[in-house]
Amino acid sequence: MEKVRQGDYILLMDEKGRKIIVKVKGEGVFHTHLGTLGLSDLMDKKFGSIVKTNLEKKFYLLKPTLLDFLKKMGRPTQIIYPKDIGYMIVTCGLSSGDKVIECGTGSGALTIFLANVVKPRGKVVTYEKRKEFAETAKVNFERVGLDKYIELRVGDLLEEEVDEGEYDAAFLDVDAPWLLVEKMYTALKPSRYLFSFSPSINQIQKTVLEMKRKGFIDIKTLECFIRHMIIEETRIRPDSRVIGFTGYITHARKIDVR
Amino acid sequence: MEKVRQGDYILLMDEKGRKIIVKVKGEGVFHTHLGTLGLSDLMDKKFGSIVKTNLEKKFYLLKPTLLDFLKKMGRPTQIIYPKDIGYMIVTCGLSSGDKVIECGTGSGALTIFLANVVKPRGKVVTYEKRKEFAETAKVNFERVGLDKYIELRVGDLLEEEVDEGEYDAAFLDVDAPWLLVEKMYTALKPSRYLFSFSPSINQIQKTVLEMKRKGFIDIKTLECFIRHMIIEETRIRPDSRVIGFTGYITHARKIDVR
Amino acid sequence: MEKVRQGDYILLMDEKGRKIIVKVKGEGVFHTHLGTLGLSDLMDKKFGSIVKTNLEKKFYLLKPTLLDFLKKMGRPTQIIYPKDIGYMIVTCGLSSGDKVIECGTGSGALTIFLANVVKPRGKVVTYEKRKEFAETAKVNFERVGLDKYIELRVGDLLEEEVDEGEYDAAFLDVDAPWLLVEKMYTALKPSRYLFSFSPSINQIQKTVLEMKRKGFIDIKTLECFIRHMIIEETRIRPDSRVIGFTGYITHARKIDVR
Amino acid sequence: MEKVRQGDYILLMDEKGRKIIVKVKGEGVFHTHLGTLGLSDLMDKKFGSIVKTNLEKKFYLLKPTLLDFLKKMGRPTQIIYPKDIGYMIVTCGLSSGDKVIECGTGSGALTIFLANVVKPRGKVVTYEKRKEFAETAKVNFERVGLDKYIELRVGDLLEEEVDEGEYDAAFLDVDAPWLLVEKMYTALKPSRYLFSFSPSINQIQKTVLEMKRKGFIDIKTLECFIRHMIIEETRIRPDSRVIGFTGYITHARKIDVR
Repeated sequence: MEKVRQGDYILLMDEKGRKIIVKVKGEGVFHTHLGTLGLSDLMDKKFGSIVKTNLEKKFYLLKPTLLDFLKKMGRPTQIIYPKDIGYMIVTCGLSSGDKVIECGTGSGALTIFLANVVKPRGKVVTYEKRKEFAETAKVNFERVGLDKYIELRVGDLLEEEVDEGEYDAAFLDVDAPWLLVEKMYTALKPSRYLFSFSPSINQIQKTVLEMKRKGFIDIKTLECFIRHMIIEETRIRPDSRVIGFTGYITHARKIDVR
Repeated sequence: MEKVRQGDYILLMDEKGRKIIVKVKGEGVFHTHLGTLGLSDLMDKKFGSIVKTNLEKKFYLLKPTLLDFLKKMGRPTQIIYPKDIGYMIVTCGLSSGDKVIECGTGSGALTIFLANVVKPRGKVVTYEKRKEFAETAKVNFERVGLDKYIELRVGDLLEEEVDEGEYDAAFLDVDAPWLLVEKMYTALKPSRYLFSFSPSINQIQKTVLEMKRKGFIDIKTLECFIRHMIIEETRIRPDSRVIGFTGYITHARKIDVR
Repeated sequence: MEKVRQGDYILLMDEKGRKIIVKVKGEGVFHTHLGTLGLSDLMDKKFGSIVKTNLEKKFYLLKPTLLDFLKKMGRPTQIIYPKDIGYMIVTCGLSSGDKVIECGTGSGALTIFLANVVKPRGKVVTYEKRKEFAETAKVNFERVGLDKYIELRVGDLLEEEVDEGEYDAAFLDVDAPWLLVEKMYTALKPSRYLFSFSPSINQIQKTVLEMKRKGFIDIKTLECFIRHMIIEETRIRPDSRVIGFTGYITHARKIDVR
Repeated sequence: MEKVRQGDYILLMDEKGRKIIVKVKGEGVFHTHLGTLGLSDLMDKKFGSIVKTNLEKKFYLLKPTLLDFLKKMGRPTQIIYPKDIGYMIVTCGLSSGDKVIECGTGSGALTIFLANVVKPRGKVVTYEKRKEFAETAKVNFERVGLDKYIELRVGDLLEEEVDEGEYDAAFLDVDAPWLLVEKMYTALKPSRYLFSFSPSINQIQKTVLEMKRKGFIDIKTLECFIRHMIIEETRIRPDSRVIGFTGYITHARKIDVR
């Protein structure tokens, strides 16, 4: 039975589904919209149990998942959504031990999910040219405890050398992905997948045409759309609150053209 | 540089995108719709290279991914799609080392992707009550080399004991998921995710109500929809060939109500 | 060339696409977020021309369509959307001269579009049991000048007699449509269409089963979903602002079972 | 009570929903997949009733709607779908008496629905440059009895004069809509709507930019998507058979820029 320990992050969810992530640290008191919780009272509580505030309001005490963290993260950039990350992971069959390269770390959302799958012996090498984004991402990596599987390189990948034929999968989440197609071709093992995530059809067309020129085949572009359902005893209907669009996933496989 | 070895499965893709999976074995000849390939000629070829048939027709020689295998698998049942599998893996933050339980192995598509993530130290325990389905699944597990991370139990989970509080995630893909909600509750560690995949709204409503009664919170039902884009130099448009519906994903978290 | 006359409603649209509907009346001044317009200055201007406020801000002077009115209407109830109205009109081939019955006037959005098609010799008979809704609807009918083609009856259709076999099409937009299926059956000419608009799947199932029992065939339920595209010189992408769900359309044809 | 008369078209629908349109003519016998029906026996039957073949198989005898005709029509071209036609009719508030212009008659599907709304005093002027398409369209117009409201002109609109400022709405369904934007601008009354239906995003971008240059405002591009639901006593789910894409609707309003 897992219990809350000093230093743990915990997820508190109220009965309306609102969620808070807290680090259990010291003897303080934690203030919520439903009253206060003594942090020391949370110690040794079992994950999955119910705690009450000084106002007798109920919170569910949960172990935060990566996704819970992600939703609370510092986000200087638009993030890739779980639906898109999941699709890419399954498409390339990502697995423990794989070595992957990413360009465009952003807030590190995709990086974190990739690291979570390739750990403990795999690795994610990720490039970010904007220093302040890299800082935020670094904090995020540490918070979820995945920093040791991630190699964050601050700089413009366009001007750097990559290890040739070293990576099991490659991911682009940048404004001008077509410029990096060749670099990713070099980095990938033959037969492996390059993914590019872009909202704009103009960018995608340029990227797809560059992929064709540079030795990629089996090029596909697609969109993944999510809609929730309201399922109650007397009411069943789709939820009208929907994110209408996040971006397109383009993927392709490297072929050895030399 | 990875090369084709005796016993390897290879993926051959023609210029129109049609794909074939072959096992390289012995000295035979492989017959395709574009002529023959000597299997021995494929030996020691690099993955990612191009091979030609006796009619000088081109094939791309690729390393098959799990998804490539999945598309060619024996499928006695409707399968869960990559989009749905990916969404679930990301939602629960599945990772190497996790121990998961599944009921309704079917052809083993979901099982395989779960095993691919939790390996090498994790495990998938999967139940299938229809013997002939279990047989097919077993063959599929072996073909993709993941059988050692999968424990396939033939029998009705309803009548079996599960290890209590042992699993990091639980998956239902059965006709009457509501009947197994309690069993899954028992099997899961507190705070962890139960997923149920169902096409029918009636089944889902029963399952959701049972989840509420049995100690699950944060219950959500959603659908994931994929549409491809045609991206060419002079033509950009959504693809009209679409799978209009596969099923709904319902997920919930176990709370300790005792 | 159509010109603005005393008493006309006009649509003013600014350069960002914000729209205002005004009635040109008297000598007053109209205050906008971009300055004032003298109403008398608008007189005799051509529709389609550009007018300027005292602050030299531009407005396009347009003739409001029904849809423009609809968007600015008093709306005590959720409205049926244009996409749904259009689908129904085309499905039954509604035409000038047709006589239709509606139950659940609401704010009168559907009523207005039906009247606009069946006029000048056709008619819409519409029932609304909530007096205050009927009042609002009446005002809306007059504003768009279609009141003479609409017969608004305040009361519960369940307790009223309908003209037998008189109507070319029937429309339900009520909470419990299944209760009115029989009444609508009576009202329709044989072979004609009954439509029901509902957000909730539970309601729809009851209604569909009642339709089957009561002599309707060719029963279909469907949803219509709209997404806008952002089309600019350097940016093309779907719009993420989307109405995720409005309701389902169910339609069926009356067959003579006596 | 409407009865079948010599010369009428009738719709026969079997219990599985398969539909046939027949013209009742003479004394012949009509052969179906479920046996034969004497055409003279159908005479004077009421629409909405049930008829039986010589094999005692049931058919529902219905009055065909425009949509029923449309589905059975000669179709040399891809057609615009009801969802799209309905959206356009509602957006511009099309009404009896309106005068509209269309370029790209194709098989005449859109033309027919437009004529059905603007009749009896309105008119559709439609241009088709491919003679054989015009022939098919003409037959279709006559079959549904709307030919007297349609003026079909065979020729290239690009090289013809249009009546200036005469039309209440304009519709483009051609390969290169941008070339006709100016012509349509001339034809429309100020403040009125131009619609263009196109599957390809490249075409749309060119058309949108040309609209902006030529004096159109309030330019919108959108897609309309339909999915059916399977609603049965014990099974409720979305239908997986879906038309994934038909085309985008672009609409804009003419402003007087001279």
